[in-house]
Amino acid sequence: METKRPLILISNDDGVTAKGLKELIRFLRPMGDLVVMAPDTPRSGFACSITCHKPVRYELVHEEEGLHVYQCSGTPTDCVKLAFYSVLDRDPDVVVGGINHGDNSSVNVHYSGTMGVVIEGCLRGFPSIGFSLCDHDLDADFRPMERYVQRITQKVIKEGLPPLTCLNVNFPQGPEYKGIRICQQARGLWLKEWTKRPQDNGHAFDIAGEFLDTDPQEEHNDHWALRNGYVAITPTNCDVTDYRMIETMKNWF
Amino acid sequence: METKRPLILISNDDGVTAKGLKELIRFLRPMGDLVVMAPDTPRSGFACSITCHKPVRYELVHEEEGLHVYQCSGTPTDCVKLAFYSVLDRDPDVVVGGINHGDNSSVNVHYSGTMGVVIEGCLRGFPSIGFSLCDHDLDADFRPMERYVQRITQKVIKEGLPPLTCLNVNFPQGPEYKGIRICQQARGLWLKEWTKRPQDNGHAFDIAGEFLDTDPQEEHNDHWALRNGYVAITPTNCDVTDYRMIETMKNWF
Repeated sequence: METKRPLILISNDDGVTAKGLKELIRFLRPMGDLVVMAPDTPRSGFACSITCHKPVRYELVHEEEGLHVYQCSGTPTDCVKLAFYSVLDRDPDVVVGGINHGDNSSVNVHYSGTMGVVIEGCLRGFPSIGFSLCDHDLDADFRPMERYVQRITQKVIKEGLPPLTCLNVNFPQGPEYKGIRICQQARGLWLKEWTKRPQDNGHAFDIAGEFLDTDPQEEHNDHWALRNGYVAITPTNCDVTDYRMIETMKNWF
Repeated sequence: METKRPLILISNDDGVTAKGLKELIRFLRPMGDLVVMAPDTPRSGFACSITCHKPVRYELVHEEEGLHVYQCSGTPTDCVKLAFYSVLDRDPDVVVGGINHGDNSSVNVHYSGTMGVVIEGCLRGFPSIGFSLCDHDLDADFRPMERYVQRITQKVIKEGLPPLTCLNVNFPQGPEYKGIRICQQARGLWLKEWTKRPQDNGHAFDIAGEFLDTDPQEEHNDHWALRNGYVAITPTNCDVTDYRMIETMKNWF
């Protein structure tokens, strides 16, 4: 009887030509059959957005044994939804987002298109992982991540993840890591978030920002781990109910 | 000494001309000074997305005593970020998103631009509430919501909300409600999410979907409350760390 190799569904938010995606494919090729459905252009900061007001298209751009690559005109979340709807012929063993060019730790989880991929996989009931490197460079060096990405993905394929739980995995710049820390989401704030375009009479703004860590002593958070050279795995909950607040509010009305 | 009226920052995802926004303004006018920064066109399904690859603009479109309305070329989240950066001259007492034309309960919280507004307000440290009506009609009747919206907003201004907690408030279609239920996020899945455009050779898709409630007997969830005629308040956590999973994973690596 034929034993099927693990099926790994991949998407990202930097687009189908991003180096981070190509490196992720290279790292995961030995571990299973890969289906990649990625945006046709960069979609950074797209969070879990979906395309509501226009149609979405996709096309096969590369095919070889155990690897199918599609590009899609939609958001990262659209990519995952379309892959499930129209491309996959069996359930994936894991859904993987990345490798993102840039840090998705702390509050960035809310804005991240890479995590949009991961949250979508998780909401559909499949183990899902996002990988990000704290380096925005288009030619960032992802090689030090290889064995960590393989090890974490292998572990998730083997162990699974509980319903509505996914993983947000961030890597500091290499070339070496001190190990893996299981973290909580750092509390913090983006400040100075915009720069004015002077030529536009002061009313056009480009997004910018400085991140203020509001619990800098906190050795349990992902920001601390990254600053100190560790790979930060932040288990992430797609059930966003605040259960403690339910109790508090029971006497409000 | 002058006592300032509460300051209420408002945005939405249906755009600055949406009826739901106009009705929200009408409901909240008596309660404070309003600053509205809303997208210039509909941005449904934009989640917490931010504009990374082009500049964002805004302009004042309406001004009277206690009410300033701006329209913005960015996402709902951009609107909140820009209002804080460039428009507000003091801290808001509450940030309000809506009133959304459509249901943001259950997993929809992840895709909602209205909740993008709310999550952004919450991440910045201010009490934040999203209001949604389970009616997509452009001319939906929001009037039955009035006294509930006022009462909930008043309560939040008075009591505040804990850090990283915001409220996702959904209303069934009226004309009357059975009362308020404090709920958890219903578990469920979107199915049949796309429709093919036959004229485009089968490769263009419009988003669609049927929602499958996977805990239909669950009287504690927001979907049940809405189906049964209650206003559903789902306290929502912007710290998405899965703390239980941290314990589970401590021996993984």
